[in-house]
Amino acid sequence: MAKQNRTAIEPTRAQDYPEWYQQVVRAAELAENSPVRGCMVIRPWGYSLWENMQRVLDKMFRDTGHENAYFPLFIPVGYLQKEAEHVEGFAKECAVVTHSKLEMNADGKLVPAAPLEEPLIVRPTSETIIGEMYSRWVQSYRDLPVLINQWANVVRWEMRTRLFLRTAEFLWQEGHTAHATREEAEAETLKMLRVYEDFAQNWMAMPVICGRKTEGEKFPGAVDTYCIEAMMQDGKALQAGTSHFLGQNFAKASQIKYLAEDGAQKYAWTTSWGVSTRLIGGMIMTHSDDNGLVLPPRLAPLHVVILPVAHKEEDKAVVEKSCDDLKTALEERSYCGRQIAVRVDKRDLRGGEKAWSWVKKGVPLRVEIGPRDIASGTVFVSRRDTLEKMSVSRAGFIEHIAKALADIQDAMFARAKKYRDENTVYPKTKEEFYEYFSSETGGALKCGFAVADFCADAEIEDALAKDLKVTVRCVPLDGGEPRGNCIFTGKPAKCRAVFAKSY
Amino acid sequence: MAKQNRTAIEPTRAQDYPEWYQQVVRAAELAENSPVRGCMVIRPWGYSLWENMQRVLDKMFRDTGHENAYFPLFIPVGYLQKEAEHVEGFAKECAVVTHSKLEMNADGKLVPAAPLEEPLIVRPTSETIIGEMYSRWVQSYRDLPVLINQWANVVRWEMRTRLFLRTAEFLWQEGHTAHATREEAEAETLKMLRVYEDFAQNWMAMPVICGRKTEGEKFPGAVDTYCIEAMMQDGKALQAGTSHFLGQNFAKASQIKYLAEDGAQKYAWTTSWGVSTRLIGGMIMTHSDDNGLVLPPRLAPLHVVILPVAHKEEDKAVVEKSCDDLKTALEERSYCGRQIAVRVDKRDLRGGEKAWSWVKKGVPLRVEIGPRDIASGTVFVSRRDTLEKMSVSRAGFIEHIAKALADIQDAMFARAKKYRDENTVYPKTKEEFYEYFSSETGGALKCGFAVADFCADAEIEDALAKDLKVTVRCVPLDGGEPRGNCIFTGKPAKCRAVFAKSY
Repeated sequence: MAKQNRTAIEPTRAQDYPEWYQQVVRAAELAENSPVRGCMVIRPWGYSLWENMQRVLDKMFRDTGHENAYFPLFIPVGYLQKEAEHVEGFAKECAVVTHSKLEMNADGKLVPAAPLEEPLIVRPTSETIIGEMYSRWVQSYRDLPVLINQWANVVRWEMRTRLFLRTAEFLWQEGHTAHATREEAEAETLKMLRVYEDFAQNWMAMPVICGRKTEGEKFPGAVDTYCIEAMMQDGKALQAGTSHFLGQNFAKASQIKYLAEDGAQKYAWTTSWGVSTRLIGGMIMTHSDDNGLVLPPRLAPLHVVILPVAHKEEDKAVVEKSCDDLKTALEERSYCGRQIAVRVDKRDLRGGEKAWSWVKKGVPLRVEIGPRDIASGTVFVSRRDTLEKMSVSRAGFIEHIAKALADIQDAMFARAKKYRDENTVYPKTKEEFYEYFSSETGGALKCGFAVADFCADAEIEDALAKDLKVTVRCVPLDGGEPRGNCIFTGKPAKCRAVFAKSY
Repeated sequence: MAKQNRTAIEPTRAQDYPEWYQQVVRAAELAENSPVRGCMVIRPWGYSLWENMQRVLDKMFRDTGHENAYFPLFIPVGYLQKEAEHVEGFAKECAVVTHSKLEMNADGKLVPAAPLEEPLIVRPTSETIIGEMYSRWVQSYRDLPVLINQWANVVRWEMRTRLFLRTAEFLWQEGHTAHATREEAEAETLKMLRVYEDFAQNWMAMPVICGRKTEGEKFPGAVDTYCIEAMMQDGKALQAGTSHFLGQNFAKASQIKYLAEDGAQKYAWTTSWGVSTRLIGGMIMTHSDDNGLVLPPRLAPLHVVILPVAHKEEDKAVVEKSCDDLKTALEERSYCGRQIAVRVDKRDLRGGEKAWSWVKKGVPLRVEIGPRDIASGTVFVSRRDTLEKMSVSRAGFIEHIAKALADIQDAMFARAKKYRDENTVYPKTKEEFYEYFSSETGGALKCGFAVADFCADAEIEDALAKDLKVTVRCVPLDGGEPRGNCIFTGKPAKCRAVFAKSY
């Protein structure tokens, strides 16, 4: 192993957090930039994280009564225009398809040909096209609710992109539901927000605050937007998932009407909710350290990697056999409904290089086995999250593997929660608030969450954004009631909001 | 139940096969056309078929050593141009993205703005963009083979579309591999073809012929294209999957080079292979009948649907309880590694309407339970494929559910195989061949496969396409050796090919 004082990732978090993030992603071979502006390539290790997230979320969606379907990639420009706020929000950055073939010009260059009558955009989100289909499917109250989810790629032409956190194309799921009543739709919106909270906290080990967005931060076209907000290790907030109560806005735009039991024609009430590959970015920034990725066991593609350590050629066969046997024994166990995932790394690499490659990839447990371990019936185990190393009995390790993984999962959540609590302040005055978000820690501005009573005036939000680059992240569902007057205006507070800088 | 002589789907296969197909898809709520030209909406029942296919194929790909990853939706026009045949093949029908925002013009109309420096196309297939990434990842022979699969949407601007069979946007998987030697790449190409054969025959119950395409029918840029070809119930061939040996064509186009063990710089050898949502169309056209969809149990979203039949209100609770209990008992069993999937349909519909809705959706077994069945310890079972109905003991039904499903799966394959065999001819002369493909059966031209010794001259293929709309579907891997002279030219035959009209 390399010396204690060297870290696998340079720069460290303290030195340059944004660059540290890029290097963690690179070192773990999670993803990289492609030659197409703003579009990333998700490499196998990163994609298997997404597959694990999908598997768990998909089950949660089914357990709450949803079915999957698939809608078109393209949206006619006219559809986007049906909802006034929606078009405002998305027309500014979208990929526009204008032609349906390429032709060679006189200079031997391929140029667009066969212009479309009406341009299409690549979906930035699918409310309008799905709404059109729902208007065909929904005729009577008997057709409601419609509870559908879609796993898809979407495109938003972002100018500044960052792997996983903000990319032009990203992968996500978007749930779209239609209901007979306002109450049902509101209940659905909150139900799915709580599903996201459950997933973030219990699977990603990432503590989140469930809350409501202010008017200025809402989804374009929504009546109410709810979100889960997490704190990254630089103290910034990451919006990790959103659930929108759309009222009848999109039902009116798309004419989703039904014949009610009382014989009247009524508009449906709709919701939409989504999480994306951005979650991977959040998971990285919540848990990783200066040696690279740290993965919560419940979502890790591999739980255990086993390294045979045989310095002499004659030991190799015996050691590798012992590693294979351990793999087989571990694979008979399961953890959180999944078979323990194990790999024996027999690559012909230096031991240190090999071990570090798995540290950087964040595998929760690394086991090394050499001739002496075999003789003593032990294995040498390294825990990725704490970097603790210890020799343990082989039989005990197999027996308690699920417990070891559960311990890591719990410890990761507790550590992240503690970090968030330690980096949350409760300023009593505007001055305290401004001082906090203007202070420097080390070389970079590093501030966490500020919780404060707030009058909810839009001008205050504008001023905070301008002065401090701070926004209201949300009004928490739990604990969002004001306790005093607004710290900015002295007026009666309408809520107790969470403020932060954000991604 | 409706009268014997009425069918649920109109027209019947014999009356109008193409329209019958559309009606089967509609009646089963599998998919429908969207307002976006050529793009379909895959409804939950259809999408769950795709998910079942994905689950099985994905495991097959993993078992053969492949990993999943994700590459960009967009391809720079210049990339397409790197391989001369490839650009010829795909430039003619592709969605071209030329702008990155929309702006309101003076008439209040949204128009494209912010033109891109270089247009992008929406991927019709990803050889070129994936090749670019492989050229970055592959440096030495130690980096090979690269064995990656992608699940994605692709777009080809087809002029005539048909649900599942040919749509502008479709869902597929595309495997892309790079190898150190020609032999390895060729072996991979054939290995994946056999995976497709296994899947088609053993999961979809759809018999296929594995073969090689002729020069004229190859993938643009491939050295060799292999395919699986299935016969639909109108006798036409459906190309259901392809596996391409790309030689060094794309490695040269993308500069995928590696340092060999002997110290030389060499180009890699690559392959690509794919199947798509077209498979769903093939499955429908292989098995469905004039009452709608018939699903092979191994891929059916539901194995059993249970209908409570209680004409008196006072029987309802007891009957529904009995149905729920049967569901619970069946769910304890499994079939082909999957828990038996059961639904009790308690919808408030007329019995006949309810039963027919499941006939049209193709659920393999339909069970009806009324007060008398409960009293006698029996259930009334209808088998979708044969439409047989019988009263069986409840305990026996539970005990033998997996066998019943296996019987249906086997019978469906045997029936489809028999149909193909009965509709395959072996013309000895050009006249016989022309007569066969010019003959009328009923109202529509209906011909199957013709197997014949062939000199493989391109002009003959051109003439057959022009005269009869018949093409060489493939030269079978098993049985493709010529037995005599070419039936068209009398010249020594190069192969024994399968000819047909096709989708």
